[in-house]
Amino acid sequence: MSEQATMAAACPIPISQYPQVMLAHGGGGKLMHQLIEQMFVPAFRNPLLASRHDGAVFRVAEGKMAFTTDSYVVKPLFFPGGDIGSLAVNGTVNDLAMCGARPLYLSAGFILEEGFEMETLWRIVNSMKNAASDAGVLLATGDTKVVDKGKGDGIFINTAGVGVIADGVEIGPERVSPGDAVILSGDLGRHGIAIMAAREGLEFETTLESDCAPLADLVLKLIDEGIRVNCLRDLTRGGLASALIEIAEASDHGIRISEREIKVKEDVRGACEILGFDPMYLANEGRFVAFVDKRDADRALELIRSDPAGEGASIIGNVASDANARVVMESRIGADRIVDMFSGEQLPRIC
Amino acid sequence: MSEQATMAAACPIPISQYPQVMLAHGGGGKLMHQLIEQMFVPAFRNPLLASRHDGAVFRVAEGKMAFTTDSYVVKPLFFPGGDIGSLAVNGTVNDLAMCGARPLYLSAGFILEEGFEMETLWRIVNSMKNAASDAGVLLATGDTKVVDKGKGDGIFINTAGVGVIADGVEIGPERVSPGDAVILSGDLGRHGIAIMAAREGLEFETTLESDCAPLADLVLKLIDEGIRVNCLRDLTRGGLASALIEIAEASDHGIRISEREIKVKEDVRGACEILGFDPMYLANEGRFVAFVDKRDADRALELIRSDPAGEGASIIGNVASDANARVVMESRIGADRIVDMFSGEQLPRIC
Repeated sequence: MSEQATMAAACPIPISQYPQVMLAHGGGGKLMHQLIEQMFVPAFRNPLLASRHDGAVFRVAEGKMAFTTDSYVVKPLFFPGGDIGSLAVNGTVNDLAMCGARPLYLSAGFILEEGFEMETLWRIVNSMKNAASDAGVLLATGDTKVVDKGKGDGIFINTAGVGVIADGVEIGPERVSPGDAVILSGDLGRHGIAIMAAREGLEFETTLESDCAPLADLVLKLIDEGIRVNCLRDLTRGGLASALIEIAEASDHGIRISEREIKVKEDVRGACEILGFDPMYLANEGRFVAFVDKRDADRALELIRSDPAGEGASIIGNVASDANARVVMESRIGADRIVDMFSGEQLPRIC
Repeated sequence: MSEQATMAAACPIPISQYPQVMLAHGGGGKLMHQLIEQMFVPAFRNPLLASRHDGAVFRVAEGKMAFTTDSYVVKPLFFPGGDIGSLAVNGTVNDLAMCGARPLYLSAGFILEEGFEMETLWRIVNSMKNAASDAGVLLATGDTKVVDKGKGDGIFINTAGVGVIADGVEIGPERVSPGDAVILSGDLGRHGIAIMAAREGLEFETTLESDCAPLADLVLKLIDEGIRVNCLRDLTRGGLASALIEIAEASDHGIRISEREIKVKEDVRGACEILGFDPMYLANEGRFVAFVDKRDADRALELIRSDPAGEGASIIGNVASDANARVVMESRIGADRIVDMFSGEQLPRIC
């Protein structure tokens, strides 16, 4: 994907004339018109955008839909394995997937800082275009605002998404039941550490890349194969720990996990030790937990592992039958500890 | 509404402990959890938010839907007639209405700057709650990010919205035909001048308030009464001029309007003369143009005028039958001039 982005056509806005974003690019006049008509509409080419309407209009069948939003303020904008553009597409696609939905349409709201490089905007737009194409979603509607220099940070992107949920699919914390297997889709913490490394100029012996990836295909495969998936959650801010605690609280069931089953790459573990981070709380952008009926656990694990986004999956625990809605982790040396939400700020602006 | 907002309950986050937003309020840990559980979920109380899912899940009937987004970066945050919260709700509700849709659900993405006053956030959340209730929409899903001090400007809000379009309703620039009447829903420029006045400390003899208002009820009334509405557009950034030019270009039809029929309040006209603005380009947040089949024009005008949001409506012109997709305005002294998009930046950050 990054190669495609590099090989993309030259920036369609004349850089010699407009090397940087100006306030007028968000002002509703000629320059905003030019930005929309010459950059956004051709990049995201589709009939919905082409209608030049105040919103996208499309038909849906009778049934359930999912609707979600996230803003992206990641710093730096480009990092090993992704950038703010691919993150803004995959993050929202994944939130839809976690509802069991097939993602259909995304909106994109850009908040640009006056003086932001036009060429950089073009790189990001190309990355969004490629990520949307990979995830099978259309960027259907958008908005651009420009704030004065010093009142933003280059670019913030909000995406919202809508998707459809197949009949009979019921996914949510309230469906979680004692005995459910908890499957983790891969190793933890790569996104958080990749961002941190890019921000602080840290170097590793191997190339440490973000796990940023769209998860919808993998989730839909589970559903299509008839796996009884009760709850799904992607492991972004707050990491695995926060996701499990939220599900325990919302479902009112305890969760038991085993530290031994949780994979963390050597590089990530080393960085965590040096920097004082705990991989349990690190953000990921291509990892999720699935709560699956225990009778389907092995088949679900096999299906997840057969997908590139889930190669490193493992069953890390199960839903307990006791009444305490707590997350308890058995450590490598066999001791139990209660997993708590962290209080401070582990790593700001990772998404 | 403003009175209700003033009378709202005290801020649910203990101000003595957290007088300002901290980076950790966006970090996925305890403080973010507290903000969501104690402020956002109770304020916007509804079953979709209560499910604590990654997205909102709802049922829809077979048919057409509209999907739209806008980010709000208005400065100052509070102005006569509204604030960033009411604007963020009404602006997106109005974009849905302009598609002929009944607004159902909004998402809200907050980008907060570290150090932003918690009490101010609470005022804004209350304003959004009241505006959503007035417009009959649910705030169904949301996201909060916090950026470091100096990298934002207090608060930016993105809202996206979804709505349903009744069977048989076909609204869009491609439907515009020669002879269509162009109805303007009221006087121009109040929002832009109210923002400018609040920003620069200008005073007027009368209280000049923004026209910020939800337009969905009025639009749906036209549709329900069987008015043949071909196109709708609200007059935000770029004002009436840009809206008409965009529709002329997208429909490939010329538009003729008469300056005499375009109402501008004395205060607004005076401010424009002093500040060098043209009301044709000023932003409005509660005004729209309707392109209506000429046989329905009088009835449409009457219906619009019967609504508080359309009291000052008038027929300002019609779609020309010549082949030039230009907007031509007959001035007060009877001379024709071509209305062009403006090139520069008339008034930044008005929405």
